[in-house]
Amino acid sequence: MTSKIIIDTDPGVDDALTFLLALASPEIKLEALTSVHGNIGIENTTRNALAVLELAHASHIPVARGCELPIISRSYNSGKNVHGVKGVGNAELPEPKSKVVNQHAIDFLIEKVNAEPNQISVFPIGPLTNIALAITKEPSFAKNIKELVIMGGAIKHGGNATPLAEFNIYADPHAAHVVFHAGIPIKLIPLDVTYQCLLTTADVEEINQIKSPIATFIKDATSVYINFYKQYEGFDGCALHDPLTLATIIAPELLTFEEYHIDVDMSGGISNGNTFADFMKVSKKPANMQVAMQVRGKEFIELFINRMENLCQKI
Amino acid sequence: MTSKIIIDTDPGVDDALTFLLALASPEIKLEALTSVHGNIGIENTTRNALAVLELAHASHIPVARGCELPIISRSYNSGKNVHGVKGVGNAELPEPKSKVVNQHAIDFLIEKVNAEPNQISVFPIGPLTNIALAITKEPSFAKNIKELVIMGGAIKHGGNATPLAEFNIYADPHAAHVVFHAGIPIKLIPLDVTYQCLLTTADVEEINQIKSPIATFIKDATSVYINFYKQYEGFDGCALHDPLTLATIIAPELLTFEEYHIDVDMSGGISNGNTFADFMKVSKKPANMQVAMQVRGKEFIELFINRMENLCQKI
Amino acid sequence: MTSKIIIDTDPGVDDALTFLLALASPEIKLEALTSVHGNIGIENTTRNALAVLELAHASHIPVARGCELPIISRSYNSGKNVHGVKGVGNAELPEPKSKVVNQHAIDFLIEKVNAEPNQISVFPIGPLTNIALAITKEPSFAKNIKELVIMGGAIKHGGNATPLAEFNIYADPHAAHVVFHAGIPIKLIPLDVTYQCLLTTADVEEINQIKSPIATFIKDATSVYINFYKQYEGFDGCALHDPLTLATIIAPELLTFEEYHIDVDMSGGISNGNTFADFMKVSKKPANMQVAMQVRGKEFIELFINRMENLCQKI
Amino acid sequence: MTSKIIIDTDPGVDDALTFLLALASPEIKLEALTSVHGNIGIENTTRNALAVLELAHASHIPVARGCELPIISRSYNSGKNVHGVKGVGNAELPEPKSKVVNQHAIDFLIEKVNAEPNQISVFPIGPLTNIALAITKEPSFAKNIKELVIMGGAIKHGGNATPLAEFNIYADPHAAHVVFHAGIPIKLIPLDVTYQCLLTTADVEEINQIKSPIATFIKDATSVYINFYKQYEGFDGCALHDPLTLATIIAPELLTFEEYHIDVDMSGGISNGNTFADFMKVSKKPANMQVAMQVRGKEFIELFINRMENLCQKI
Repeated sequence: MTSKIIIDTDPGVDDALTFLLALASPEIKLEALTSVHGNIGIENTTRNALAVLELAHASHIPVARGCELPIISRSYNSGKNVHGVKGVGNAELPEPKSKVVNQHAIDFLIEKVNAEPNQISVFPIGPLTNIALAITKEPSFAKNIKELVIMGGAIKHGGNATPLAEFNIYADPHAAHVVFHAGIPIKLIPLDVTYQCLLTTADVEEINQIKSPIATFIKDATSVYINFYKQYEGFDGCALHDPLTLATIIAPELLTFEEYHIDVDMSGGISNGNTFADFMKVSKKPANMQVAMQVRGKEFIELFINRMENLCQKI
Repeated sequence: MTSKIIIDTDPGVDDALTFLLALASPEIKLEALTSVHGNIGIENTTRNALAVLELAHASHIPVARGCELPIISRSYNSGKNVHGVKGVGNAELPEPKSKVVNQHAIDFLIEKVNAEPNQISVFPIGPLTNIALAITKEPSFAKNIKELVIMGGAIKHGGNATPLAEFNIYADPHAAHVVFHAGIPIKLIPLDVTYQCLLTTADVEEINQIKSPIATFIKDATSVYINFYKQYEGFDGCALHDPLTLATIIAPELLTFEEYHIDVDMSGGISNGNTFADFMKVSKKPANMQVAMQVRGKEFIELFINRMENLCQKI
Repeated sequence: MTSKIIIDTDPGVDDALTFLLALASPEIKLEALTSVHGNIGIENTTRNALAVLELAHASHIPVARGCELPIISRSYNSGKNVHGVKGVGNAELPEPKSKVVNQHAIDFLIEKVNAEPNQISVFPIGPLTNIALAITKEPSFAKNIKELVIMGGAIKHGGNATPLAEFNIYADPHAAHVVFHAGIPIKLIPLDVTYQCLLTTADVEEINQIKSPIATFIKDATSVYINFYKQYEGFDGCALHDPLTLATIIAPELLTFEEYHIDVDMSGGISNGNTFADFMKVSKKPANMQVAMQVRGKEFIELFINRMENLCQKI
Repeated sequence: MTSKIIIDTDPGVDDALTFLLALASPEIKLEALTSVHGNIGIENTTRNALAVLELAHASHIPVARGCELPIISRSYNSGKNVHGVKGVGNAELPEPKSKVVNQHAIDFLIEKVNAEPNQISVFPIGPLTNIALAITKEPSFAKNIKELVIMGGAIKHGGNATPLAEFNIYADPHAAHVVFHAGIPIKLIPLDVTYQCLLTTADVEEINQIKSPIATFIKDATSVYINFYKQYEGFDGCALHDPLTLATIIAPELLTFEEYHIDVDMSGGISNGNTFADFMKVSKKPANMQVAMQVRGKEFIELFINRMENLCQKI
């Protein structure tokens, strides 16, 4: 049985790799993409979403354009130094021929999810603005989502936007607060596990043994990203933050989940955007999500390479 | 020349009086009402909007239903002890025959405002949730509104929800933050002036010299409200917070505005929901709104009574 | 009957004028000065305290040196542009011959106040660090102070350090919080009244009709201060913030007090250092101080000039 | 060479065990105890400090009484359910004959530390109020301490006072902020390691093989504590939070330290009292302390038992 998913996304290098992995995975039926601000501005994330689908011969999949700003508009450093000026590293994707659907991502999400109650899982792999506003605008949306699988947060791990905050949450902590407290079944994929899934230069070369525009794209897209990691974090390889969300469908055995009450600080102070568990159950609040705390990272990377090789042989 | 306005509202006794005043004022063309949570839950505010229009033979005016919760969902004390269990004091309005339009208030606001750029003023007299979400969902909305005239905030005056915060702002401070910083021309009508516009029991009796369902409604609706003021604030009369916004059109000479940079605290601490001016220009930020700091209150009350009497003679 | 007072101070131009006014006032027995960081660093405030006493032939009055940093150490803009590089404008006071007492201001305050329970009023006219630490170190201190008369805060008035915060409170909001909640009888002299007591260039000239080192000092000390006001606040004259505290003894009829529960924000956010009243009694907390909300400013200035002229004739 | 230490303490069961371990350790010269509010009120913590020393025939060691309230006075749950009504579980210690020194703990600490620069290490194992006020009152104190070894904080571990905050830090987060940023060499012993050092009922029985008032005290003192852990945290045994600090002297090989910039949230919101590391060096701030992140817990417990047995044989 295939799982129907919508990816809410701010491509972004690892976002793009997530679409490719979804398309390469028979367990998944990718219903749509919805774009959001984040790694780069909404113009670029929307364009990248369309262009990567086109590259993968998947232009039939609809893309809906979403919010260009977080709920509380404020400047935050986008990921230009991580994801390149246009958001996909050094990759030069042709201007996409396909267009976004004529509906705001918020309404598109509400309509799709409410049309098939408990059938569609949403995978937010950027800031949570679209999801939060869909919940606020139409409370039934929260009841009808099958599951949210969110790339975001840092639990025991340090933050990458501030000492405490992970980028996606930091970019819109208010949205995260709305989403975390909406009563939706959630699986959280935080930095604690994503930083254990590193795609190295050698891995990229391995994929490029096959001649394919997909392989070339992966190489061009990850080069800036890998350089960033080399420079700032001192290792060769880039974390597959976003693709790891799909492991919940295609290889759930690689992830170990723990149930926690997770909250998010939105005070505006030094803890702004911190996602934290109540490990000692001090607050006595019931768990509101499952959090991936361990992953067999190398196996996930192998799976990723394998699926990409298969895709490259087709396209 | 008449001014086209939409009132975004959480009726609420003084909200209802605002609709009546708008309908009684030839200077105003009331285009629509949009409902929001606030003085009472969204079911009641929406129903009351429809019912009061029906009472005033104005069912042709569309009502769009809006948000049922503030952006960051949390419990706040609604105004049941001020506005009565159903939101209109002791008034017993028949179930309205008319229905809301088949469009969410956010989308209705966006569509109406964007259809006639710079022609429509919006009068938010409840929490600012709908307006904030319209801005976030569709940034062009902010550019096309002619003006926002907001009942909300307490500048030099004390708050009525907390020592610092006025109710409408306190009920959704994040929404207020979005609205205040969206670059829209704003006139703010804070407690500083609304508490100088007190409708007394004698005034209500005067209106009731004329036999009219309108007069009866005003009497029934204001009785709980006036009792609340008598008990908690020690004077006979209820403040016409919301109707005073319409003075900006029908009697602008009664209000004195000052230009300030107004910000709102949304820290979640003791100052949450505080609206404050930078009187000394310490922050050097440019003014973002005009704030009514003085009003000739008695003259406004006389005007209100007069208009109500005219309306009562017609209906 | 004379009132025994200790002034806790960060001289500072208007601090210096406060000492002179105290010495010129037979109603007051100035027991001591305690220095604190604030308008300028502790080295200069301590030196200025000694030097001004020496100028006024009052070196017998002890000076105890206090805290050099606020409780939570952080940088704040001191008042160099207001009070001049050394804290007394352009005045060049000779290096004082007298020395500080061999006791920290905290201990000095505790010892003096506890030696004569309910006899000594303390006048903090700088940041409240010393007073707060004396309270925390020795709780009996709070019980034995007769009264605190504090120059600080901005209630309806705008702040002068931030849009909401007055300088003395902003410089150590945590200390203010400790002091406001210690159960001590407090009179607060906020910007609401001090900005109505403006000493003009003409007033300074009037004092200088008498040849005296005191008159010369007043002229030299206030020139930078008056220039600051001219440049930033657009009027000729400097506010006698600190001297006005003494009006509570020498001319109480000039001040109108109201009783309020006053709290202070120490969240660290945009409201940090805000002092606010609960005008509407929303919190139902009992009043914790008397706040001067009105002053007959011109009469106070006349009184000040008069007393200075008397002092000039003696010295 | 023996290390001279002062323990700043709120006994408290594990505080008492810390004194005993210090007295049982030839590597340590216990110079004094300073008492502080915390697990129980200052009257009881001071009395317990004296009484435990007396029990161990160590009344010659001076005890100075410190602060009874945190810097920002507010109610927090003390540890009565953990440490028993009087702070030492079910132990009934006779009223001590010895008295505290005639000097406030703040002044005592300043005098002792400044008398022997860089010779004395201070071990704060309660809230950091005394240490913070000593730093604020006398900045030279910070320069002359050899080292602070602090029991406090929770880094990757959950908090025990709130989901994020450890009790000692939570009880006075402002004090922690002062201490962490004073430039003093610090070793932090957080819950991450202390929860790995569990003294079980069997361990207590083992110590009680020797008949000694010390052994009896350990049994009586820990029984409530162990019951608390059994009930709330589901294991048999109590964590030796405070005694573990002494491992830095008597068995440093058991602890693994990492250098981090550690900060503390004092916003007053949900993150209040959170101590957090900047693992990813996002803030680029230099490390301000060494943090124990791993411990060989069983070996520490064995060492503790061993030392207690030796002590029991003497007393």
